[in-house]
Amino acid sequence: MQTDKVFQMSASNIRFGEGCTSEIGMDLRALDVRRTMVLLDPGLKSLPIAEVVRDSLKQQQIDFEIFDEISVEPTDASFQHAAAVAAAGGFDSFVAVGGGSTIDTAKAANLYATWPAEFRRYVNAPIGDGQPVPGPLKPLIAVPTTAGTGSETTGVAVFDFTAQKAKTGIASRYLKPTLGIIDSNNTRSLPPAVAASSGLDVLSHALESYTALPFDQRPKPASPSLRPAYQGANPISDLWCLHALELMGEYLPRAFADPSDDEARSNMLLASAIAGIGFGNAGVHLPHAMSYPVAGMVKGFRPKGFDVDHDMVPHGMSVILSTPAVVRFTAASCPQRHLRAAAALGADVSNANPSDAGNVLADRVIHFMKRMDMPNGLAAVGYTATQIPDLVAGTLPQQRLTKLSPSPVHESVLTSLFQESLKLW
Amino acid sequence: MQTDKVFQMSASNIRFGEGCTSEIGMDLRALDVRRTMVLLDPGLKSLPIAEVVRDSLKQQQIDFEIFDEISVEPTDASFQHAAAVAAAGGFDSFVAVGGGSTIDTAKAANLYATWPAEFRRYVNAPIGDGQPVPGPLKPLIAVPTTAGTGSETTGVAVFDFTAQKAKTGIASRYLKPTLGIIDSNNTRSLPPAVAASSGLDVLSHALESYTALPFDQRPKPASPSLRPAYQGANPISDLWCLHALELMGEYLPRAFADPSDDEARSNMLLASAIAGIGFGNAGVHLPHAMSYPVAGMVKGFRPKGFDVDHDMVPHGMSVILSTPAVVRFTAASCPQRHLRAAAALGADVSNANPSDAGNVLADRVIHFMKRMDMPNGLAAVGYTATQIPDLVAGTLPQQRLTKLSPSPVHESVLTSLFQESLKLW
Repeated sequence: MQTDKVFQMSASNIRFGEGCTSEIGMDLRALDVRRTMVLLDPGLKSLPIAEVVRDSLKQQQIDFEIFDEISVEPTDASFQHAAAVAAAGGFDSFVAVGGGSTIDTAKAANLYATWPAEFRRYVNAPIGDGQPVPGPLKPLIAVPTTAGTGSETTGVAVFDFTAQKAKTGIASRYLKPTLGIIDSNNTRSLPPAVAASSGLDVLSHALESYTALPFDQRPKPASPSLRPAYQGANPISDLWCLHALELMGEYLPRAFADPSDDEARSNMLLASAIAGIGFGNAGVHLPHAMSYPVAGMVKGFRPKGFDVDHDMVPHGMSVILSTPAVVRFTAASCPQRHLRAAAALGADVSNANPSDAGNVLADRVIHFMKRMDMPNGLAAVGYTATQIPDLVAGTLPQQRLTKLSPSPVHESVLTSLFQESLKLW
Repeated sequence: MQTDKVFQMSASNIRFGEGCTSEIGMDLRALDVRRTMVLLDPGLKSLPIAEVVRDSLKQQQIDFEIFDEISVEPTDASFQHAAAVAAAGGFDSFVAVGGGSTIDTAKAANLYATWPAEFRRYVNAPIGDGQPVPGPLKPLIAVPTTAGTGSETTGVAVFDFTAQKAKTGIASRYLKPTLGIIDSNNTRSLPPAVAASSGLDVLSHALESYTALPFDQRPKPASPSLRPAYQGANPISDLWCLHALELMGEYLPRAFADPSDDEARSNMLLASAIAGIGFGNAGVHLPHAMSYPVAGMVKGFRPKGFDVDHDMVPHGMSVILSTPAVVRFTAASCPQRHLRAAAALGADVSNANPSDAGNVLADRVIHFMKRMDMPNGLAAVGYTATQIPDLVAGTLPQQRLTKLSPSPVHESVLTSLFQESLKLW
């Protein structure tokens, strides 16, 4: 195999600062748009942020309509419904206000309204056809209200493909929002349990990208346009990811312990965006790949502190539950990186041997899981050993992610990883 | 004064990797362009890079013409000449192959061919009218052949406005290249003296951005579109700049000592691009502002190792000559940052007092200047104390830069800084 010698950093436009949400009306005015679809998390309707967004658009006389039929975990059907509304409404611009589900729904609505196609067309192969998006979309301003997905910085939209019973996504640089608004006012009312789960998602984004297969061990593509967005660890994503881990180590426990800690909340949002740029250019691997069936097959578990009327494992929780087992497995491929990540997260690695790297990092991840009141492994969210073959079967199709593991994986490896993740401490 | 609470990171697309220059034909093909203007530094015509670029475009059947009338220090006249050629040639895309002068000429040619206007219109105020660029330009792929300006990542084009006897520029995010190609093959034939001067320019980009007035001490703009690109030090530019300083401290002496050291050369290009993204979002201040009259008024000095037929001070040299005096002056505003920068450059700061920060950092800069065979101050490039009023007068119009100094400057401060820069050790 000829490996690639090249990586690309595609950047994102991000604005940081308390109160900067009030500027988006002026941004839309400067973009010379006429009619904006505002996709709003329904849980935010009566919160101050909805008022700030409406006022900002009204002040600039932007014609807009609010769409709040956002699914907590979007599906192909909910994406297509939003796209149909976007097309019928004649919108020439989009604003997304919410977490990853809302921002991802806006990306999909923008995509299918701009470049209509049979739904499977742009969905990642092998689940979808994996055809490239033909060109630029309409402007989208993303206003995250959780410090988690980093969706405001990435060209990825994740959803449940119901017919296929699989979590998958659409990935194209054209999906990347025109501007991400990082305003710590918008996470003030985030419930601690949601902050914990989404914060651990950020932690895993940074950790997975930093430990992903290096870009120069990926096969060389036939042309630069075929180089994947998830191109493996590289010197630029390393910079982003290590700094995100440092911010995380310092501020995640504070943000969880005291939602009124403005400095901690602001730095968590910064970490989320920084990790988003990092993983958007490097990629995530096994913890995310394994999280999809964990979230998809859940029965009998409802997370404390989440306002939900059905069984679910929140995304960040589903990811972090397998992270300790994964880092113990991947450490052998690059022990120094695993130790460096543990140190960035605040662990004392001065006396650690390379052969201990996996345990040192796993222990540090578990340290944060305990402080964030995470369940003790997959068993604590309702899984038993008998379901492991199904969890493995649900992970194998996530080839876009599993191939970024720095240590090669196959069925028996995944089986072991799920087994070790049943109980963590 | 109400200060801003907001900063924005504007993205750049950068591709890194030995040999990636050969991909640009495929990139142009993917952009669906028909006719490309290739701006080429005339010194590169017979070097391998010119062949690589031509072959890449030919293989993809891109119709192109080569334009090599690039001035080493571009002027309004040379910018306008390139723009006239661009407009007459009916080009729909641009490739720039060379140092900052070539890339900046391509930006200007693209701008005035796309949005024709009286030349002063887009030039920075107060020298020009400072009007905003109306919209996107045509695609421009920038291929730097020096590790210095970082122009491949920025929306700035610098030139001598001959009639006004001033160095100034055009700044707009629309000027930013579509893609920067960071290929260490392209700096292999860089003469050591050129590598030294351009490398010290990178060092100063990173240092000035890291010590610039913080973004939240800048006046709040009336609308987000009026927020300047040079918005002051911020947590994202800090990340870029510190890492650029670390790379610089490690690799600049190696790249200078041995031009065949591929690893050092590759990391210098990476540092240049990283510092470019940093200063493109934060800004440079006094060393750059003071460098313009130093370069503009030179008489009787020709740098060793440069192939020039007229008196000149290379850009990086003109910048670094005042850096030691500047950091001694600015250190009081933020001693910890000055010490942190010195540490990133490899200085031992474990026993340094905050009150020594300026001297510690100045000494570290001088350490690199000596290793790079820089002249010992402005006197060594031909300046005398009697010229200082003229140098001060030439600096004062650079308000876009001087206002980013973390310590306020006025005429008497500049006079002292030039005096202290006459002889450095």
